[in-house]
Amino acid sequence: MKIEIVAIGNEILLGSTVNTNAAFISQRLRQKGYFVSAHSVFQDDAKILQKSLLEAFKRSDIIIATGGLGPTGDDTTKKVAAKLFGKKLVLNKNLAKKLFQKFSKNKYVQSQACVPEDVIILENRLGTAPGFIFERKKKVLILLPGVPFEMEEMFLGVLSYIQKKYPLKEKIYQDELNFCLLKESDVEPYLEIERKKGLEIGIYPSLCQIKVSFIAKDKDRKKALLRIKNAKQKLEEKFRKYVFPDSIEEALKNIFIAKEKKLALAESCTGGAIASALTKIPGSSGYFLGSIVSYANELKKNILHVSEATLKTKGAVSLETAEEMLRGLFEITDADFALAISGIAGPQGGSIQKPVGTVCIALGKRGEKVQSGKIQVLGNRDLIINYCVRFALSLLWVKISANLTYFNDGK
Amino acid sequence: MKIEIVAIGNEILLGSTVNTNAAFISQRLRQKGYFVSAHSVFQDDAKILQKSLLEAFKRSDIIIATGGLGPTGDDTTKKVAAKLFGKKLVLNKNLAKKLFQKFSKNKYVQSQACVPEDVIILENRLGTAPGFIFERKKKVLILLPGVPFEMEEMFLGVLSYIQKKYPLKEKIYQDELNFCLLKESDVEPYLEIERKKGLEIGIYPSLCQIKVSFIAKDKDRKKALLRIKNAKQKLEEKFRKYVFPDSIEEALKNIFIAKEKKLALAESCTGGAIASALTKIPGSSGYFLGSIVSYANELKKNILHVSEATLKTKGAVSLETAEEMLRGLFEITDADFALAISGIAGPQGGSIQKPVGTVCIALGKRGEKVQSGKIQVLGNRDLIINYCVRFALSLLWVKISANLTYFNDGK
Repeated sequence: MKIEIVAIGNEILLGSTVNTNAAFISQRLRQKGYFVSAHSVFQDDAKILQKSLLEAFKRSDIIIATGGLGPTGDDTTKKVAAKLFGKKLVLNKNLAKKLFQKFSKNKYVQSQACVPEDVIILENRLGTAPGFIFERKKKVLILLPGVPFEMEEMFLGVLSYIQKKYPLKEKIYQDELNFCLLKESDVEPYLEIERKKGLEIGIYPSLCQIKVSFIAKDKDRKKALLRIKNAKQKLEEKFRKYVFPDSIEEALKNIFIAKEKKLALAESCTGGAIASALTKIPGSSGYFLGSIVSYANELKKNILHVSEATLKTKGAVSLETAEEMLRGLFEITDADFALAISGIAGPQGGSIQKPVGTVCIALGKRGEKVQSGKIQVLGNRDLIINYCVRFALSLLWVKISANLTYFNDGK
Repeated sequence: MKIEIVAIGNEILLGSTVNTNAAFISQRLRQKGYFVSAHSVFQDDAKILQKSLLEAFKRSDIIIATGGLGPTGDDTTKKVAAKLFGKKLVLNKNLAKKLFQKFSKNKYVQSQACVPEDVIILENRLGTAPGFIFERKKKVLILLPGVPFEMEEMFLGVLSYIQKKYPLKEKIYQDELNFCLLKESDVEPYLEIERKKGLEIGIYPSLCQIKVSFIAKDKDRKKALLRIKNAKQKLEEKFRKYVFPDSIEEALKNIFIAKEKKLALAESCTGGAIASALTKIPGSSGYFLGSIVSYANELKKNILHVSEATLKTKGAVSLETAEEMLRGLFEITDADFALAISGIAGPQGGSIQKPVGTVCIALGKRGEKVQSGKIQVLGNRDLIINYCVRFALSLLWVKISANLTYFNDGK
């Protein structure tokens, strides 16, 4: 049984929209033991779409398609699917009534209540476009709206439909380990033996961290899980201080709250991106006090009390400024831990002494000696900012979880 | 000539990584007049990959594939492609020497210097994996690494290769208009006539804004461009105050710098996300002073001077608190414009009076009457935060560009 995820829409093929829906659906399916065999994106032109869907059904059994269900002229998915499965579109009066109550009564909303006969209709609580499940013999086509938050909510129903209709026989078991501050080549030497034992192991590097994924296929659940457990354990023992559970933001929240510690930040080059990453996690207000995004020197001086002299003689991007920003944070907040960062994200502002990508970081625990260090990040502005965010979160994680001082105590 | 963009890697099919590479490549091709006909994601298993690539070549002429070029065991793209095109892999000594100089000398780096014979090799300045262009008859396979910043830099070379090898005949012309604070159904009634004239028009809603894309296909460049221009102009006239050029962050930077005005923020529920969005743009330090991310009430009081009484009687999420945050900003900075936001992003913290999604915003120009308003955002935490960011940027845009007051002056 092969599952393919399809996105329909020229906005994706034009590069105007990133196909995040496919990642979401894949993830949710994987959590239930289903592995997706392909992703595709098709044009929303009716003829091309029909041909593409027919082709996709040659390689796949279940197609989960998002997009093209809107009420406007460029949305053709519903019509094409109805034609493909030989279903008529008819006005569903109940649905029309519901939609008119929730949204306004107009021809666009009415067109959303025209639905294929004899298919499963999936309610959309947050928008006007219902979803549909078409079935014929062993082929299933599931249509969902392309707007992520509408689709995500409706996908829960799709998941239980799939679990009921296609209970798993040979299951695929997958687990993963996350390490911060490590590279692919740090862990690779320890994985070859495990691969020979039949585990599928992938290493997925991202900024400042790697994810190692272990996949075992087996009818015997216990056997598969044991094989994964052993491989995980070996690797974990090698690099214990760098392991973090799930997302590093989530891990930081949990450990800060468990230890009843508070965190504050002072950000310059990251412009609020570290704070933004931390506060994406529900409950982050339980430990995160806030961030002084002191982009202008004026704010570094007036709010964080960085001295005029330091800014003049050492510059805004210097270990000294980062350290004074940190001390300022400890003065104006009750934080137990704090981190300050100042750097040159570019493309302007670099010099020979301090090229673009020069970043100074200071961090520490109230009452302890301040740690600080300078790094040189390669890449464009986006990359430099994102790297700084991951690096800062990693430093905080190894500090609070393993009391690991990444920077030497001296400079 | 059909172009397909392929990503290779189980991490995408598992949903661990979002396929942003496809969007990037599509966008860059479109800017040169090339339209991508499909995106696909394939498994990195050698047999399946070979079969998938063969199938893809039935529907497409040029395949641009990213991923699976790493030095580790799960990376098979290079071998599969070499087999498909009948090329041997041989050690390229020059390349090996270069890689050893830049990275360390080990077997992983060495394996990256084993390259197919008689293909075009694309240099990777930022990583170890070179790219390749395979050609046979009218079919072209271009392999690029999956790491976005490596791929993005290397893609420039690919683009000029494609332009040289496949000069366009019938060109596709595309242009777009962005509106903030409008919905799909606001503009749809004005587009039907234009569609009948042969323009392809798509409306792509995102949070708080819509993008209207106009596509014309014609051998006659002037005709096509004129058709697009007329349609654009008509729509622009209808909704002039809501139009913004390119990205709203970029537009804000340009107008603030042109008017020599400074901006400061005070963020609670958005946790730095507005500042982070603004500072992604190079040169934002030319107008953006910073943001006080006052997540905890302590920071609202101590830094922004919100009164204890207001926080107690009205709560942190109230028009009064947002207004006091704004006044505090004007006190502690030299900002000409400022915006303050406080809300309940959830999932915890809601009540009957103030359900999750309640957000209070105050904004204004130094010396003018403060505007403030309350909105109710639907959706989960992520969505609420993202919506607030877009909404705040939109309010700032219509305020500074068209002096449009979105909220009524009274409460």
